Amino acid sequence: MAVPKGARRRTKIVPGLSPGTLTDQVAGVRRVRLRVYDEHGVETRDDPDEATCGAFRARGGRIWLDVAGVPDAGLLRMLGAAFGLHRLALEDVQRAGAQRPKVDSYDGVLFAVLNDVERQASGLLEIEQVSLFLGPSFVVSFHDGEGDDIFAPVARRLDSADNPMRGRGSDYLFYALVDLVIDRKFPLLEDFGDRLDALEAEVLERATPDSARAIQQARRSLHVLRRAIWPERDVVANLLRDDNALIRPETRVYLRDCYDHAAQVIEVLETYRETASGLMDIYVSAISNRLNDIMRLLTVIATIFMPLSFLASVYGMNFDRDAGPLAMPELGWAYGYPAIWCVFITVAIGMIVWFRRRGFF
Amino acid sequence: MAVPKGARRRTKIVPGLSPGTLTDQVAGVRRVRLRVYDEHGVETRDDPDEATCGAFRARGGRIWLDVAGVPDAGLLRMLGAAFGLHRLALEDVQRAGAQRPKVDSYDGVLFAVLNDVERQASGLLEIEQVSLFLGPSFVVSFHDGEGDDIFAPVARRLDSADNPMRGRGSDYLFYALVDLVIDRKFPLLEDFGDRLDALEAEVLERATPDSARAIQQARRSLHVLRRAIWPERDVVANLLRDDNALIRPETRVYLRDCYDHAAQVIEVLETYRETASGLMDIYVSAISNRLNDIMRLLTVIATIFMPLSFLASVYGMNFDRDAGPLAMPELGWAYGYPAIWCVFITVAIGMIVWFRRRGFF
Amino acid sequence: MAVPKGARRRTKIVPGLSPGTLTDQVAGVRRVRLRVYDEHGVETRDDPDEATCGAFRARGGRIWLDVAGVPDAGLLRMLGAAFGLHRLALEDVQRAGAQRPKVDSYDGVLFAVLNDVERQASGLLEIEQVSLFLGPSFVVSFHDGEGDDIFAPVARRLDSADNPMRGRGSDYLFYALVDLVIDRKFPLLEDFGDRLDALEAEVLERATPDSARAIQQARRSLHVLRRAIWPERDVVANLLRDDNALIRPETRVYLRDCYDHAAQVIEVLETYRETASGLMDIYVSAISNRLNDIMRLLTVIATIFMPLSFLASVYGMNFDRDAGPLAMPELGWAYGYPAIWCVFITVAIGMIVWFRRRGFF
Amino acid sequence: MAVPKGARRRTKIVPGLSPGTLTDQVAGVRRVRLRVYDEHGVETRDDPDEATCGAFRARGGRIWLDVAGVPDAGLLRMLGAAFGLHRLALEDVQRAGAQRPKVDSYDGVLFAVLNDVERQASGLLEIEQVSLFLGPSFVVSFHDGEGDDIFAPVARRLDSADNPMRGRGSDYLFYALVDLVIDRKFPLLEDFGDRLDALEAEVLERATPDSARAIQQARRSLHVLRRAIWPERDVVANLLRDDNALIRPETRVYLRDCYDHAAQVIEVLETYRETASGLMDIYVSAISNRLNDIMRLLTVIATIFMPLSFLASVYGMNFDRDAGPLAMPELGWAYGYPAIWCVFITVAIGMIVWFRRRGFF
Amino acid sequence: MAVPKGARRRTKIVPGLSPGTLTDQVAGVRRVRLRVYDEHGVETRDDPDEATCGAFRARGGRIWLDVAGVPDAGLLRMLGAAFGLHRLALEDVQRAGAQRPKVDSYDGVLFAVLNDVERQASGLLEIEQVSLFLGPSFVVSFHDGEGDDIFAPVARRLDSADNPMRGRGSDYLFYALVDLVIDRKFPLLEDFGDRLDALEAEVLERATPDSARAIQQARRSLHVLRRAIWPERDVVANLLRDDNALIRPETRVYLRDCYDHAAQVIEVLETYRETASGLMDIYVSAISNRLNDIMRLLTVIATIFMPLSFLASVYGMNFDRDAGPLAMPELGWAYGYPAIWCVFITVAIGMIVWFRRRGFF
Repeated sequence: MAVPKGARRRTKIVPGLSPGTLTDQVAGVRRVRLRVYDEHGVETRDDPDEATCGAFRARGGRIWLDVAGVPDAGLLRMLGAAFGLHRLALEDVQRAGAQRPKVDSYDGVLFAVLNDVERQASGLLEIEQVSLFLGPSFVVSFHDGEGDDIFAPVARRLDSADNPMRGRGSDYLFYALVDLVIDRKFPLLEDFGDRLDALEAEVLERATPDSARAIQQARRSLHVLRRAIWPERDVVANLLRDDNALIRPETRVYLRDCYDHAAQVIEVLETYRETASGLMDIYVSAISNRLNDIMRLLTVIATIFMPLSFLASVYGMNFDRDAGPLAMPELGWAYGYPAIWCVFITVAIGMIVWFRRRGFF
Repeated sequence: MAVPKGARRRTKIVPGLSPGTLTDQVAGVRRVRLRVYDEHGVETRDDPDEATCGAFRARGGRIWLDVAGVPDAGLLRMLGAAFGLHRLALEDVQRAGAQRPKVDSYDGVLFAVLNDVERQASGLLEIEQVSLFLGPSFVVSFHDGEGDDIFAPVARRLDSADNPMRGRGSDYLFYALVDLVIDRKFPLLEDFGDRLDALEAEVLERATPDSARAIQQARRSLHVLRRAIWPERDVVANLLRDDNALIRPETRVYLRDCYDHAAQVIEVLETYRETASGLMDIYVSAISNRLNDIMRLLTVIATIFMPLSFLASVYGMNFDRDAGPLAMPELGWAYGYPAIWCVFITVAIGMIVWFRRRGFF
Repeated sequence: MAVPKGARRRTKIVPGLSPGTLTDQVAGVRRVRLRVYDEHGVETRDDPDEATCGAFRARGGRIWLDVAGVPDAGLLRMLGAAFGLHRLALEDVQRAGAQRPKVDSYDGVLFAVLNDVERQASGLLEIEQVSLFLGPSFVVSFHDGEGDDIFAPVARRLDSADNPMRGRGSDYLFYALVDLVIDRKFPLLEDFGDRLDALEAEVLERATPDSARAIQQARRSLHVLRRAIWPERDVVANLLRDDNALIRPETRVYLRDCYDHAAQVIEVLETYRETASGLMDIYVSAISNRLNDIMRLLTVIATIFMPLSFLASVYGMNFDRDAGPLAMPELGWAYGYPAIWCVFITVAIGMIVWFRRRGFF
Repeated sequence: MAVPKGARRRTKIVPGLSPGTLTDQVAGVRRVRLRVYDEHGVETRDDPDEATCGAFRARGGRIWLDVAGVPDAGLLRMLGAAFGLHRLALEDVQRAGAQRPKVDSYDGVLFAVLNDVERQASGLLEIEQVSLFLGPSFVVSFHDGEGDDIFAPVARRLDSADNPMRGRGSDYLFYALVDLVIDRKFPLLEDFGDRLDALEAEVLERATPDSARAIQQARRSLHVLRRAIWPERDVVANLLRDDNALIRPETRVYLRDCYDHAAQVIEVLETYRETASGLMDIYVSAISNRLNDIMRLLTVIATIFMPLSFLASVYGMNFDRDAGPLAMPELGWAYGYPAIWCVFITVAIGMIVWFRRRGFF
Repeated sequence: MAVPKGARRRTKIVPGLSPGTLTDQVAGVRRVRLRVYDEHGVETRDDPDEATCGAFRARGGRIWLDVAGVPDAGLLRMLGAAFGLHRLALEDVQRAGAQRPKVDSYDGVLFAVLNDVERQASGLLEIEQVSLFLGPSFVVSFHDGEGDDIFAPVARRLDSADNPMRGRGSDYLFYALVDLVIDRKFPLLEDFGDRLDALEAEVLERATPDSARAIQQARRSLHVLRRAIWPERDVVANLLRDDNALIRPETRVYLRDCYDHAAQVIEVLETYRETASGLMDIYVSAISNRLNDIMRLLTVIATIFMPLSFLASVYGMNFDRDAGPLAMPELGWAYGYPAIWCVFITVAIGMIVWFRRRGFF
């Protein structure tokens, strides 16, 4: 429930730089895999160059080029040339950090930015950008999960012989990738929900200053998540609305389903936000209750012992008993001392009974 | 007023699965009942197979197929084939948990998802999905109330000979089911309102930490309810707006009435949310008031007994009365002891009067 | 400022009942008055039957039929037949409780539901539904104020010979009734505002737990009022927007004025809501201030008397003065006792001065 | 920063009165001035009658008729007849109190209601209605500032020979008056901002219950101001949008500028509202801090003197020193008394050091 | 994180002044630089007069006239004449203070107002207006950063021989300047975020009244920033929407990218606002926790020493031991004194153990 580091690694934008400038930043491509497929089969080639891409495109099948890792300027330029991708879009691919999900159309190529959220072993959330290009018969995808290959489930479906995905257009593959990125939020949110429940149980039982810290961190995480996830619904809505010829009517039906999922993710998130907000209220009221308990104890103690101490002090006064018959005659009584103890005990018990009756403890 | 368990049983979505995949999950169909009806009569058949469905459809009457329980993949596939229902819609039927109410149109068949909320004996709220298909001359409905058959009132109306429902189209039956699901919220909300009133009375009388817990749970329940109910108004609005030829103008008049009910449900819910919000404020102020009461008591006790104890201590000092005429001569006075008691009593009464005047108790 | 009972008497809706079902509930018609009028005069008939209504309609004048009280099913059916009113609308007329204001059009007849709010002698607010039908040349109105006849001012205008209302169409009468219901909120709100001012003054002066209760009740009342009043503006807006031929352009000018009033009612209400919200803040800060006052007193008392008591205790110690010259020689000084009193007084005054300087009291 | 009295003097609306009824309320016209002007000059006439107005209108110049004060029914009727003003608009002119700013069009005459806010010597804000009619070649204006003539700056511009205003149409004069009323809010808001700054400084320094009162009053004032000012932006937007032929394109450019000013006024207001909201938070936290300070002092005092008093009491016990060697032998030591003082001082200093270390004071 | 002074230097608007009035306020032009450029080269001239401007415009190249500093009325009038700029726009250029960002179109010239925010050495934020005119083949820009020339990066790009900017139209230069002003917010926000993190760490560790002050100041700063920045997104959206022929389709692609940046700035700002809001909650709960700690200490001390002091006082009572066998016989026991110490120690340790068990410290 810690603040996602990825989200706070704010985008470094150098004001005044030419738009579409590709910088040679710390890059690390982990794998570039080119697939060409049609209803008959799939062919795979790793680390293709521009010529290979051209040759594959010329063959007439559908192409999926998937880049895992952070691409350098050279690779991006090569892909831009091979598939006709716009420089501004490529600049967006390279911009690390949590970018705002969006969909754009450049010269007949759709470009979508989504966010993938992963929970690291350390418990921190990491937001990674996923970039997708959809052309007439190709999909180019970029993702940077340092752990597993997040697109593996779709790749497996494509590689299995009997899956109908092969027979469908590139727009269906594009939809499958978008759907995958959105559905990946469900297990994550479920996990988050469990932690919120645990936090609530903890606050209701014993509220420590650490709880306040945890609640604030949960709220910040939720806000960052919201910022990363909320626009994805609009991305899908735009894909549905868009009269872009690249997405065919039969695929739109599936995208509508995908839109429902995106909306559901947001609603779950909003529920958590409300829960986290309520937690702070509970926390504050728990602290106030604690204070009441403490003060009640102090009051009980003080109220019992102050009168007793006063009485004991009275009989510690040094009035001269010889001065007259009214000068502390109690001190001379044979049963004065047991009597005063009876008074002490009566007062103490009376106080306790009175407090009980008023519901003090 | 406990958190609805059904709502927290979050939808298990396996990211990357083919869309429209029907899984063989724990299913349990409790009854499948097929009715064919027209203005002349109703014929009923339980657990029909695809052939029966086809035969009934061929007869030309209006059909209502109602499934109670959780359908398995086989049944869904059979119904899909018999009535031409889309796979994506069937997948939504099978997805358990509280789904977002919506209305979709697949190949000339309307598909609506609604939520039915039931209060269980244990006091927990249970949200169950209700799925409805409306075709040219049929309605297929799915519901999973484990207790009573929630569609029984409509079934009774259809089965009673003189009800005009038989003579109306399938869209009227569809409307009747939607209306029933929405109207079922009224008694439930009434019950919820009574519990909120009881909670408010409790908080105003004696606010315990349990009250805070109850308030937070009520707020969560209300939020979950809201999430389940709010989109139903949009569902009805969409049915009204939709230029779908399936719903005829004469039925739209009734749907408009249904829309008013849905809007009213939401407004009652919003009132409860506001009340629950105000309860937390009252609770916090009740705790503060309690603290004030406690501190007031402590202050009264301390302010009365501290000066008295001081005075008693003074006359417990051991100054040598032989040292001079100013060395504690009071101790030697014949009426010194009664006099000091007079002082004690005067001071105490004076304090009490002063506190009374300042409105301390 | 108590919670309106009328608003909490929630509508009893029996889920699954046929729409447009008229129930024979506890009804009590207090008066049915039929007026037929034109620029030449007004004729009045009480408790008309269907034939009378038909005869009056046939005459060609404008008709106003006004029902005071809760109509039974028979009367509604008769009126429905005589004026061509839709069953769904008649069902809405019969539904008691605070319904959502709305305007509907059934077969060329406009149907509007408004809420009239009345403050009863007991101080409770009572929300009563007002239903209005506008046909080509008739107005049928239902209202249920148990006290005065709320439509009396309009009836008087119609009955007075020189009022231009007689010469105008039924739509003008309809407007006049809508305007009356909306304007009736102004004195009520004014009264409510005065009570809020009184409550604010009370909270600023002395905040008791009763104040919290009163604030919460005021907030609930305001919320219920808002729910009852807010949609009325939309009702008037709909009447303005509607391309219904029943309302003529010259009447629209008046409705626009009526819309301004409805908007003004809402704004006053919002101001009160904000004030009531602020009251809770003030209340909480008043309690905190009170606590500060109490604690300040306790601290002053303790800080003055604790050192004094300690000093007195010191000179109550029983060190053997014969043990040596340093064994409490003060006790033997001739002016020891006056000296210790000087110390007592000095310390007390010093403390008081110090507290004053720090602004403690 | 006190609550504007003008805003609370709620409009007295008598429900059920004929619309457009002009009442003979307490009126007091302070001046009626008629100007006819064109590019060649200005002619002025005070207190004109209907004939004069007609004669002036016949001459063909542009007319500005300005009424200062509260007009009576007679004057309004005369002006209505002379300029063709609608009765409903005239009724709105007469309605005192803070009306909602709006713009309406009656029979080819534009009617705008604005609010002028003035700070009185007493520090109270007073909201006064300004009403403006724009006809084909005339402007009729009503305002009721009891102090200065608020339209004086525009009048001066019109009266000065070289101002281009004379050569422009009546719509430009209309714009100039609207612009003036809106711009008059800037100095007022600036003043309000200064007072908020002062209040913030006061709360940060020493928060008294009076501060809470002042904050609440500032919030109420801001809310009332907002209600008075917010719709003015819409008024200008409506003038811009309106396809009313009365406002010519060249004047629209100026109105757009005026719209920017109206939007800026609202933004400043919103900033103040947010500041005032934050003030309450600061105030509450200041009170809590104060309480902490008080309790810290009490705790320090109690923690130092309670152990000391206990020790002193111990050596005030009367155990019989002759009973045995362990019976309070300290009392007989020659240096017992100095030793106990050393203990007292050591304990006190130790406590103080410990508190310092824990950052208690 | 202090309140931006620039934003509080409220715009001085003199109500009733003629629109488009240029005042001879304290002006200080620091540099006026005229550039004419095309794909072949750039020519620069400082402090041009109207004739120079005309001559340059006649040559047919693209023109950029950049004014640094506060222009006086003379310069504005000259530029208005030379480039055909509208008086109202020029008045807006001269209005100092934080104006609302907007875009307007006057006679075929686009006029945009943006805000540049700079953090001064003193830590204060300063908001400075940037005004941009875009004509068919010219850009006129005004900015007033007192420090560096904020347009320097774009000027350098234009001056470097190989930059494609020279070959593109004036609309591209216009876009580059807008983009620069928006991107300049990123480093500033990053800095602000770091300070918020530091503030949060401080509040979580030790909350002082200074923290409350800092939080309130951060919130005010954020509100002012929001007011300055939020409308810039709409400015870019308007430039995109506008069917103004001045911005060509190929430039629109870049503006869309710029829109994304503006949206991102706003989202970061909203995150900070939420964080700052949460800080206040944490601060209040930290104070409450502190109070609990203090009271716990006081309670522990009082609960231990009050019973002990009472016991010591009991044995300081002066009952006459000769009165009988029950008159304080303990005082005569040989081991009475050690025994009472054992009781003291037992009680103290018992209390401490009990407090530990209840988790008191």
